[in-house]
Amino acid sequence: MLTGKKVAFVGGDARILEVIRHLIELDAGAVLMGFDRLEAGIPGAEKVGLTVEALADVDALVLPLAGLDEEGYADSAYSAGRIRLQDEHFSALPSYCQVFSGIAGPYLEQICRRHGLRLVKLMDLDEVAILNSIPTAEGAIQMAMENTDITIHGSRSMVLGFGRCGMTLARILAAMGAKVKAGARKPADLARIREMGLTAFPMKDLGDQVGDAEIIFNTIPAPVLTADILARVPRNCLIIDIASKPGGTDFRYAQRRGIRALLAPSLPGIVAPKTAGQILAGTLSRYIWESG
Amino acid sequence: MLTGKKVAFVGGDARILEVIRHLIELDAGAVLMGFDRLEAGIPGAEKVGLTVEALADVDALVLPLAGLDEEGYADSAYSAGRIRLQDEHFSALPSYCQVFSGIAGPYLEQICRRHGLRLVKLMDLDEVAILNSIPTAEGAIQMAMENTDITIHGSRSMVLGFGRCGMTLARILAAMGAKVKAGARKPADLARIREMGLTAFPMKDLGDQVGDAEIIFNTIPAPVLTADILARVPRNCLIIDIASKPGGTDFRYAQRRGIRALLAPSLPGIVAPKTAGQILAGTLSRYIWESG
Amino acid sequence: MLTGKKVAFVGGDARILEVIRHLIELDAGAVLMGFDRLEAGIPGAEKVGLTVEALADVDALVLPLAGLDEEGYADSAYSAGRIRLQDEHFSALPSYCQVFSGIAGPYLEQICRRHGLRLVKLMDLDEVAILNSIPTAEGAIQMAMENTDITIHGSRSMVLGFGRCGMTLARILAAMGAKVKAGARKPADLARIREMGLTAFPMKDLGDQVGDAEIIFNTIPAPVLTADILARVPRNCLIIDIASKPGGTDFRYAQRRGIRALLAPSLPGIVAPKTAGQILAGTLSRYIWESG
Amino acid sequence: MLTGKKVAFVGGDARILEVIRHLIELDAGAVLMGFDRLEAGIPGAEKVGLTVEALADVDALVLPLAGLDEEGYADSAYSAGRIRLQDEHFSALPSYCQVFSGIAGPYLEQICRRHGLRLVKLMDLDEVAILNSIPTAEGAIQMAMENTDITIHGSRSMVLGFGRCGMTLARILAAMGAKVKAGARKPADLARIREMGLTAFPMKDLGDQVGDAEIIFNTIPAPVLTADILARVPRNCLIIDIASKPGGTDFRYAQRRGIRALLAPSLPGIVAPKTAGQILAGTLSRYIWESG
Ligand SMILES: NC(=O)c1ccc[n+]([C@@H]2O[C@H](COP(=O)([O-])OP(=O)(O)OC[C@H]3O[C@@H](n4cnc5c(N)ncnc54)[C@H](OP(=O)(O)O)[C@@H]3O)[C@@H](O)[C@H]2O)c1
Ligand SMILES: NC(=O)c1ccc[n+]([C@@H]2O[C@H](COP(=O)([O-])OP(=O)(O)OC[C@H]3O[C@@H](n4cnc5c(N)ncnc54)[C@H](OP(=O)(O)O)[C@@H]3O)[C@@H](O)[C@H]2O)c1
Ligand SMILES: NC(=O)c1ccc[n+]([C@@H]2O[C@H](COP(=O)([O-])OP(=O)(O)OC[C@H]3O[C@@H](n4cnc5c(N)ncnc54)[C@H](OP(=O)(O)O)[C@@H]3O)[C@@H](O)[C@H]2O)c1
Ligand SMILES: NC(=O)c1ccc[n+]([C@@H]2O[C@H](COP(=O)([O-])OP(=O)(O)OC[C@H]3O[C@@H](n4cnc5c(N)ncnc54)[C@H](OP(=O)(O)O)[C@@H]3O)[C@@H](O)[C@H]2O)c1
Repeated sequence: MLTGKKVAFVGGDARILEVIRHLIELDAGAVLMGFDRLEAGIPGAEKVGLTVEALADVDALVLPLAGLDEEGYADSAYSAGRIRLQDEHFSALPSYCQVFSGIAGPYLEQICRRHGLRLVKLMDLDEVAILNSIPTAEGAIQMAMENTDITIHGSRSMVLGFGRCGMTLARILAAMGAKVKAGARKPADLARIREMGLTAFPMKDLGDQVGDAEIIFNTIPAPVLTADILARVPRNCLIIDIASKPGGTDFRYAQRRGIRALLAPSLPGIVAPKTAGQILAGTLSRYIWESG
Repeated sequence: MLTGKKVAFVGGDARILEVIRHLIELDAGAVLMGFDRLEAGIPGAEKVGLTVEALADVDALVLPLAGLDEEGYADSAYSAGRIRLQDEHFSALPSYCQVFSGIAGPYLEQICRRHGLRLVKLMDLDEVAILNSIPTAEGAIQMAMENTDITIHGSRSMVLGFGRCGMTLARILAAMGAKVKAGARKPADLARIREMGLTAFPMKDLGDQVGDAEIIFNTIPAPVLTADILARVPRNCLIIDIASKPGGTDFRYAQRRGIRALLAPSLPGIVAPKTAGQILAGTLSRYIWESG
Repeated sequence: MLTGKKVAFVGGDARILEVIRHLIELDAGAVLMGFDRLEAGIPGAEKVGLTVEALADVDALVLPLAGLDEEGYADSAYSAGRIRLQDEHFSALPSYCQVFSGIAGPYLEQICRRHGLRLVKLMDLDEVAILNSIPTAEGAIQMAMENTDITIHGSRSMVLGFGRCGMTLARILAAMGAKVKAGARKPADLARIREMGLTAFPMKDLGDQVGDAEIIFNTIPAPVLTADILARVPRNCLIIDIASKPGGTDFRYAQRRGIRALLAPSLPGIVAPKTAGQILAGTLSRYIWESG
Repeated sequence: MLTGKKVAFVGGDARILEVIRHLIELDAGAVLMGFDRLEAGIPGAEKVGLTVEALADVDALVLPLAGLDEEGYADSAYSAGRIRLQDEHFSALPSYCQVFSGIAGPYLEQICRRHGLRLVKLMDLDEVAILNSIPTAEGAIQMAMENTDITIHGSRSMVLGFGRCGMTLARILAAMGAKVKAGARKPADLARIREMGLTAFPMKDLGDQVGDAEIIFNTIPAPVLTADILARVPRNCLIIDIASKPGGTDFRYAQRRGIRALLAPSLPGIVAPKTAGQILAGTLSRYIWESG
């Protein structure tokens, strides 16, 4: 329980609403800044203005997942105006206050450092990345379902990369009955792939492996599906690339060869905002709780 | 291989194209009637008119999956006009010819009986129903993904009915990480559900079980999700009803209570026509092969 | 709950002790006949002599799983002497009393019929056979582990028969990472095998399939692993035959060819008597409960 | 293929035989030293004496998995006498020769360093540890089966530690139908446990979690199942401790409390020597191949 803790929320999207609900359930006090258009409100949360007073005794300041832009503005899906956070606000925060965002640019990094505040970038945490791999994988699979005329079951599916997303994706695809080949470069990853009952191949052999693929999922943020490789991919194969922009696919060449290739960013917030919010809420509340 | 066998196709949809391709791969001869708008054609298949001569030596006559209507008309997604099959056509068929459709109404049943021809209703075959349960289950899950803000993983999902579709659906959902409760009325089904590691409950206890469901999949073609039961279902629960029309849900009451409930007919042909065609092709070619 | 019900137990083994414990937990009254050597006793159960009076008001009579022999004797692992049940005992039972055994020979069948009593042969019930398939499958796998120098994971394992035991065995082996081929004769079973992601083959092709098997599990109570077939099985393959005696293997020929083949009867009672007892207890208590 | 490569084997056990066979299949030349009692021999391998000449042109020297003792002796299951390797032998090896063992003591480490030879300790490699986790996990499960009267299916099983062995063990147990709780101390591990659909708990809460355990598998090489914790473990719970000696269990206290606790070292070589040998063979041949 977080009884006695006070958390200030400044802007955000549907995922942040889920975080607010979760913290209130844990009995934390919640003040909302920049949620004026949230008509129904959230029982137990109080809408307030962004003032120095309101920030003076908070244990945590929760920013939008995108953090602040380089002028200090926070986006909010629930506010007409924009909200700007500046030195005066950060200097109002108590020294023990933790600041939470998903990612952070130089502005946010520097202002926290300047005021001696602990900044937690949730998306950088391994545990969040692993749990987020679940909605990511489901989103990628949903896209594959929507864009093929075959079932996942029985499909010859490839997963490139065996990090946090790759392992989850491979596991779910196999569980659904796909014939999964997974590519990685580390021998330890290849061993784990085999342990999981899947077919493993070293990424350097990618070209020899793609010849009969029906669906390729890429998770590697590096140019792996190059023109050379794509030339050996069957024309009716579908590529779902979830790696961070610009992905790992030569999209220009794919299009020229007539291969459908889709870049799929930000899946958790799109396909399962509630689950994505709960993931953040779980980690965030643990951080507040452990800080004593 | 089906070398030396001749198969006539009269109308149909994308699934029938898959059947044609598969049979040609097995070296059967294929004549197509009512495919005039199929511009590219299918290598190895010959488009002909619907004539008595063309039917005189065929080993199999493949009709659309919906069969014939009560005036003998066959639908075709690849023909401008409609095609009508009458006594003259059936009497032209050799006595050893097998007639294939998905389902059959009285007209088709009677005309086959009259001419002493074996009619195979593919959709009635247990093996087809089981394999079709795969695209059906994936289609239902895709709909659930598209209509919720949570992941299948971790969701409290219910499956009503443990026949051919129910077993497949429950297995895939659990494999994806859902917390699956499955309801059936036969003790043997309840035992199999437990063997598969899922939570089993007798359908008569349905009312006591729905209180915390997030997604309910119904496969029972009988009124099971009645108003009484729906009154105990949480408002934000999603219902996907795949049972044959009119489904097993009181849709009127569901709407009144604000529960989203979707009737989802004909999923295999919609979400995975190629796989659905391959399933039919596999069974159909075995029937032709086994008939000697 | 079974409050107010009285159940008499006459002999049995470790599994029956589990049944007794379970019924007492459900608040049934339990009288034990032929448990004199059970020193500790079971809290809540009363040891009595086998008398007409003691039987006069029981709702259920639970015999050993093997039933009675042809002279009416019941075996007991917990009694020095033997116990004999005759007409006088059965005529003492109230007409609503149900008689439970695992299996039944003519003596038991006839005596129940003569006295108009309902006889429930638990081992004949589909639900018990399905739940029993779990300890059976685990026992067979344990034997395979103990008798090979390879892991189940990655092994080329075959399962013959896809009934209640075959399905469970195939599912667990695949889950453990074995490469499972399952053989059945019904097209519907072959379809279900494929749905489960395993390799299916028709039993008539068995000879063509065994050439690289490392472990073969047989569940078919008919001569399927004949000399003809065994001649094509690799010499270092292990056969575990769980079908009821004499199994489905030509053991004489297997030995001659140097193939290790083990007949494995009565696994549940041997490898997991507690689980086996709980399975029986669950079904038995439901029967008593439903009889009103 | 390893055509043209020459490998010398000095002693070893059943696993090494598997390595020899595998390398011969890849067309490597194999000379065996200290295999005099291996009567049948291995086709393609040549038994020779341990001489400086025989070592002069080898690409790899494969020692027993236990390495050499502090006087340079190598154990062999296939030799009456003992074999001693000294400076003269190592100095005979070409500079490009790789030396393989499972583990290594100071003698072996130093003699390799002295002669500028690359020493590969196979058991230290992550990929070997991961693949070895498979026979380890199966061996642990086999022991649990042999020492309980319940099935793995449905059992309340705990896995302590989520490293290479812990992940594999948890995955297989869950696949077999156990209700698995896995304990780890890293938030990322807890996240992965949840992703895999299992119940995760932080090791610091171990005491609160053990109250209803039926089987506990420990993989943590540190005192985790202390007297304090064991006092809360049910008396009929079985503990299988696979952590390296002395394990993570207070065996003395466990015995005093009447809890069965088994230390289970060296499982791969015991339960599946052939698989264990193939794992080593795969990695070893890759090292030889990659060294050019
Ligand atoms: N679309 C979305 O909604 C979404 C959601 C989450 C994550 N993502 C993105 O998806 C990507 C994967 O995320 P993650 O959490 O799985 O990351 P991760 O755990 O770091 O995994 C990345 C994988 O790529 C491999 N890799 C990196 N560079 C490589 C190269 N040059 N050649 C071969 N393999 C290479 C890594 O192998 P090594 O271990 O050998 O380096 C690892 O297997 C990231 O770009 C991430 O931003 C997208
Ligand atoms: N939407 C689609 O794309 C699609 C695709 C395939 C099938 N379907 C439809 O889905 C439904 C299920 O197909 P299926 O192949 O799974 O059929 P099935 O194998 O016959 O299974 C039907 C299940 O419903 C149960 N059931 C029937 N009447 C019941 C009642 N009054 N109360 C309780 N349980 C009852 C059956 O239990 P018992 O065994 O105890 O009778 C069985 O478990 C059918 O209506 C079928 O037409 C739809
Ligand atoms: N060792 C033990 O501890 C233990 C425990 C439980 C059961 N059992 C024994 O194991 C056997 C299987 O039990 P179960 O419960 O799985 O029985 P089941 O459900 O009746 O399954 C039997 C399987 O064998 C097939 N089969 C029967 N005769 C055949 C034939 N002539 N050719 C090809 N297939 C044939 C059946 O196919 P169809 O459906 O096509 O007929 C079915 O797939 C029985 O003998 C049973 O007594 C032993
Ligand atoms: N019996 C056999 O046949 C056999 C076979 C293989 C291995 N083993 C032995 O089994 C053990 C595990 O092997 P492995 O390959 O899985 O090793 P591993 O990958 O290093 O895993 C060890 C696990 O123990 C955890 N751990 C270590 N110290 C801990 C502590 N003080 N408190 C809580 N957790 C702690 C680690 O957590 P962190 O990641 O947080 O450190 C990790 O999860 C080793 O002792 C190994 O020698 C035995």
